Amino acid sequence: MFATKQEKTGLYYDLNARLVIYAPDALGTESSKTAEGVLRYASNPIVGVIDKSQAGKTVRQVTGIPLDLPVFASLEEALELKPQALLLGTAWSGGGLPPSWKPDLLKALEAGLDIVNGLHDFLSDDPELSKAAEKNSCKLIDVRRPPEHLPVGTAACRNLDSFVVLTVGTDCSVGKMTSSLELAKVAREKNKKAAFVATGQTGIMICGTGIAIDRVIGDFMSGAVEQMVLEAAVDNDYVFVEGQGSIVHPSFSGVTLSLMHGACPKALILCHNAKRSKIKEKGIDMDILPLDELVSLYERLCSYLQKTKVLGVAFNTHGMSEEDAAQAIASAEKLLNIPVCDPVRQGAGRLFDAIEKYKESLA
Amino acid sequence: MFATKQEKTGLYYDLNARLVIYAPDALGTESSKTAEGVLRYASNPIVGVIDKSQAGKTVRQVTGIPLDLPVFASLEEALELKPQALLLGTAWSGGGLPPSWKPDLLKALEAGLDIVNGLHDFLSDDPELSKAAEKNSCKLIDVRRPPEHLPVGTAACRNLDSFVVLTVGTDCSVGKMTSSLELAKVAREKNKKAAFVATGQTGIMICGTGIAIDRVIGDFMSGAVEQMVLEAAVDNDYVFVEGQGSIVHPSFSGVTLSLMHGACPKALILCHNAKRSKIKEKGIDMDILPLDELVSLYERLCSYLQKTKVLGVAFNTHGMSEEDAAQAIASAEKLLNIPVCDPVRQGAGRLFDAIEKYKESLA
Repeated sequence: MFATKQEKTGLYYDLNARLVIYAPDALGTESSKTAEGVLRYASNPIVGVIDKSQAGKTVRQVTGIPLDLPVFASLEEALELKPQALLLGTAWSGGGLPPSWKPDLLKALEAGLDIVNGLHDFLSDDPELSKAAEKNSCKLIDVRRPPEHLPVGTAACRNLDSFVVLTVGTDCSVGKMTSSLELAKVAREKNKKAAFVATGQTGIMICGTGIAIDRVIGDFMSGAVEQMVLEAAVDNDYVFVEGQGSIVHPSFSGVTLSLMHGACPKALILCHNAKRSKIKEKGIDMDILPLDELVSLYERLCSYLQKTKVLGVAFNTHGMSEEDAAQAIASAEKLLNIPVCDPVRQGAGRLFDAIEKYKESLA
Repeated sequence: MFATKQEKTGLYYDLNARLVIYAPDALGTESSKTAEGVLRYASNPIVGVIDKSQAGKTVRQVTGIPLDLPVFASLEEALELKPQALLLGTAWSGGGLPPSWKPDLLKALEAGLDIVNGLHDFLSDDPELSKAAEKNSCKLIDVRRPPEHLPVGTAACRNLDSFVVLTVGTDCSVGKMTSSLELAKVAREKNKKAAFVATGQTGIMICGTGIAIDRVIGDFMSGAVEQMVLEAAVDNDYVFVEGQGSIVHPSFSGVTLSLMHGACPKALILCHNAKRSKIKEKGIDMDILPLDELVSLYERLCSYLQKTKVLGVAFNTHGMSEEDAAQAIASAEKLLNIPVCDPVRQGAGRLFDAIEKYKESLA
């Protein structure tokens, strides 16, 4: 009942399994970024979202994501649509499992559903859940559990033919995963061979494989990134690596730097939430650094290993008026003199064009 | 038989226990830095070192450390001096337990010795060793096992009255722990209240407490540092935090940055091995950066959270002639215009003076 990657496909779970997303009191809030990422990008069929506080509405009404899926008041209601797996769709700093979820998780297992979990707390470490999963022949899929025997990083990605692009941020939760996914999408639309490398729980849930770098032991973080990038580079012209955290974020800067020095990117895309001026971590009073300062800092720290340039900026303008968004983007573009756009609102075409042009200039 | 910290003292083990150090084929080499750190700084009585390849010599003859302790050919020989614990004295990148050590470890447990281990592989996870420890009422003390339930960092060390000093390096194994210990020693000699915060296996073995940051899960590294520094700051004027790795080391830079952003130091001491021009990690061909570049980079990255200055440089000149050492030191001092000295050869007095003067200038 404890799920590891399937040997044949390298995936944690079947990308055809019918999912129901669990997001009690969270859909549409900052805590439901996992739910919204999966709704937006997963290839799995989805029957709807469980969130009593928004019950009766559609996903479109609550989140703006263009999907007319129902929001259910309860697990029982969702079960009528015969989902095959329950995906836990909320996440927060620290990542503990709320005890109040336990009864629903046990009910889901009783009903024969697998559970897909991205929290720091692993379901398969819980004796009660493990027993219930075994009894009902269900899988507990803890996507954040890192593989055993990870290597130490050796800067081996410095000399790849494949063009590695890492997303970096002004803060956490600013759109790094989204930007990497949108870039990979544009590249594929242009018939390029492109890989997306998932480094966090939501990315792993979307593509079914990857390693949650923030859950890896310090000494092996850059090695884990290196291993994934080397593997992705074998058969791809472009490797888009999902970034994490921010280089001056007091909680997670070490994770960010391990990604930078593990992936040895040739290009960076800086991601920013246009409405945010302070780090959003609870208990930390800290301004977000000016964009030009961050461009210089990210380029400097990467370039000790591999000459790196920030080629564009992805602005998350969710919730802003068209006019305000356009103004914010124009002002950043004037400051930095590189393309700035919102990959969700406008697509990542201009960012990819800048990457392709730079790649060709190096050849 | 599985040892956690003793509740009353906060220590992993009794600092009066008689130790024998296990360093097969390693004493005097780069792999025995744990053995040599413990020999130089631990307060525990030590009966000698087990290393067949150097048997019959003294510790002084093999390492230059001024201790006339015997080097034993075998565990059996050492047991005649009635040690109470076997301390594993070698460490390397990756930190696995060599299978060839197992017979000696089992023999030590049979003889009633506790085992103190700093490797990534935990002895208490080995069923055979655990069983033998239980049978003989011995403890397996895995000092690198981090505590459970560590917090996420919040930059809470930014506003401490206590003056926090972090050692940073040009590479791994350049003398960061040694410099922090020597600085704490000088401070105490000058009747200042000073704490040493151990962040690696050897430091923990020396002072009996601490957390091996490189063994902590990414998301909690800076939080673990923050917790230790906050605790040490309560009753001390100076807190000397042992640094790890180097900020551009492809394998461990994330660990280094987590220490910088967890401790929020007001001052840094940059540590360097004067004979080294390349990163010494196996499989990595990379020059060590110029000292002035590293000073600027370390100050910049720390100062986003807490205004920080590199106040001095600790040169490890082990193995160099007096003349060569003096020349290397003078040349660095001319470049950087701050005190440079070898804390082992010359003591850390000049470095501490610079720290004290700067602390007073801020008051």
